[in-house]
Amino acid sequence: MTSIHIDGATRLYGIVGHPIAQVKSPEVFSERFAAAAINAVMLPVHVLPDRFDATMAALMGIENLDGLLVTVPYKPQAARYANRLGPTASRIGATNALRREQDGTWSGDMFDGAGFVRAFQQKGCELRGRRVALFGAGGAGSAIACELAAVGVASIAILEPQRERAAALAATLRQSFPGCRTDVVDTVPPGTDMIANASTVGMRKDDGMPANIGVLASDTLVGDVIVSREPTALIRHAMRQGCRYIVGREMVAGQAEAIMAFFGEARR
Amino acid sequence: MTSIHIDGATRLYGIVGHPIAQVKSPEVFSERFAAAAINAVMLPVHVLPDRFDATMAALMGIENLDGLLVTVPYKPQAARYANRLGPTASRIGATNALRREQDGTWSGDMFDGAGFVRAFQQKGCELRGRRVALFGAGGAGSAIACELAAVGVASIAILEPQRERAAALAATLRQSFPGCRTDVVDTVPPGTDMIANASTVGMRKDDGMPANIGVLASDTLVGDVIVSREPTALIRHAMRQGCRYIVGREMVAGQAEAIMAFFGEARR
Repeated sequence: MTSIHIDGATRLYGIVGHPIAQVKSPEVFSERFAAAAINAVMLPVHVLPDRFDATMAALMGIENLDGLLVTVPYKPQAARYANRLGPTASRIGATNALRREQDGTWSGDMFDGAGFVRAFQQKGCELRGRRVALFGAGGAGSAIACELAAVGVASIAILEPQRERAAALAATLRQSFPGCRTDVVDTVPPGTDMIANASTVGMRKDDGMPANIGVLASDTLVGDVIVSREPTALIRHAMRQGCRYIVGREMVAGQAEAIMAFFGEARR
Repeated sequence: MTSIHIDGATRLYGIVGHPIAQVKSPEVFSERFAAAAINAVMLPVHVLPDRFDATMAALMGIENLDGLLVTVPYKPQAARYANRLGPTASRIGATNALRREQDGTWSGDMFDGAGFVRAFQQKGCELRGRRVALFGAGGAGSAIACELAAVGVASIAILEPQRERAAALAATLRQSFPGCRTDVVDTVPPGTDMIANASTVGMRKDDGMPANIGVLASDTLVGDVIVSREPTALIRHAMRQGCRYIVGREMVAGQAEAIMAFFGEARR
């Protein structure tokens, strides 16, 4: 672990949320900045909902603050602070990272899906042409679906008990990615060769699988957003079938890399 | 040096100023927090004058921010953010530290003089009864004069080219400390046994003494606010005469201790 240093010339980044004590970004990013010899730190910033707007405006006006991450419950509101949005943020209407450009304007994008895709790519997995079954069409699920469609999966079957959410994501995908077949379904379709869990199933230790997904062919890819000490039931299932998989921590690491690159582009 | 750690539960302190890159407090306090096993950091916060009010209000509304230092040019404005002021801040109308109390209100005080007094006390020097010659009646000089009077010096002779400043400080001292004789003078009075330099003389390497102060008795105390790598002309003079003295760095360390104690009182 590289040691973190703070002095008068340190540049500030913050993660704004409510609650905040559980977030990992301050450690993860402060250590990455130190390891890259960048004099910057990532701070936890605990903001209550009735102060969100005034605090965001004030933080963005601090001369030595260069970027912000935004987490629960503020990802939908954060988009309005960007002068321009990246493709995933525009499509799903949620933003989790903002950076100050050299001209003083702000750019935002949503990286909840980029880490998922990046983690598979780093394991050498081909995603193009995959037939995906996606559990969960909330913020993370929507971001993951957009990133998967953007790298060329053949189809996305959405499994989401809230039908309106599922329909909204399907509409977004059909409009932005007409070449990707999108369906709202109740069971995992035959021929599926990629499972993505972006639901909350697996958060509790005694949670089972997000659904009965049966036997998997060993070339099926399995990804789970759940960050947990022990593998989730879904990941244990993937292991037993000899499938390649990514766990929540790998997705988080992939997202941190993607966001570091995003922040870095403003410094060039 | 203890290593600094930042996570989601880290408590924030900031030093607000313009400019900011030169301030030492982020290093000094972040390391003191780490050494005391307090999960907190001190951040540089660079705020332009037209944003000062909105930024102070927003910073004080962040749930995990527990205190603020205020430096040039904001010490006079900072008092209005405190629900109550300590004695030196009330007397001289400037504040350089604010802390959040457990009931959510804010207390402020001015510590520019406390470090000066504390540094002498730590060397075992008796200040009570001293006849002081004070160079400079600006913010630092005023704070030092109030702290010296509060610990019972016999007299303070103020040497300050701006006569209005000198008169204002003399009036404040006479009102708050009628037992301390206060004069505005042009030369160091006979019988002086303590010299305090709170003027800017000594900041530049080729600066000489703040005035011709002649031969000093070896029991004279000499203190200089100037923070410099090499001893100032005044301190070299004190050394040659065998006087006890404190340099700017010792005053800064004394002030950091006093402010750490001030912050700590809110956590008890």
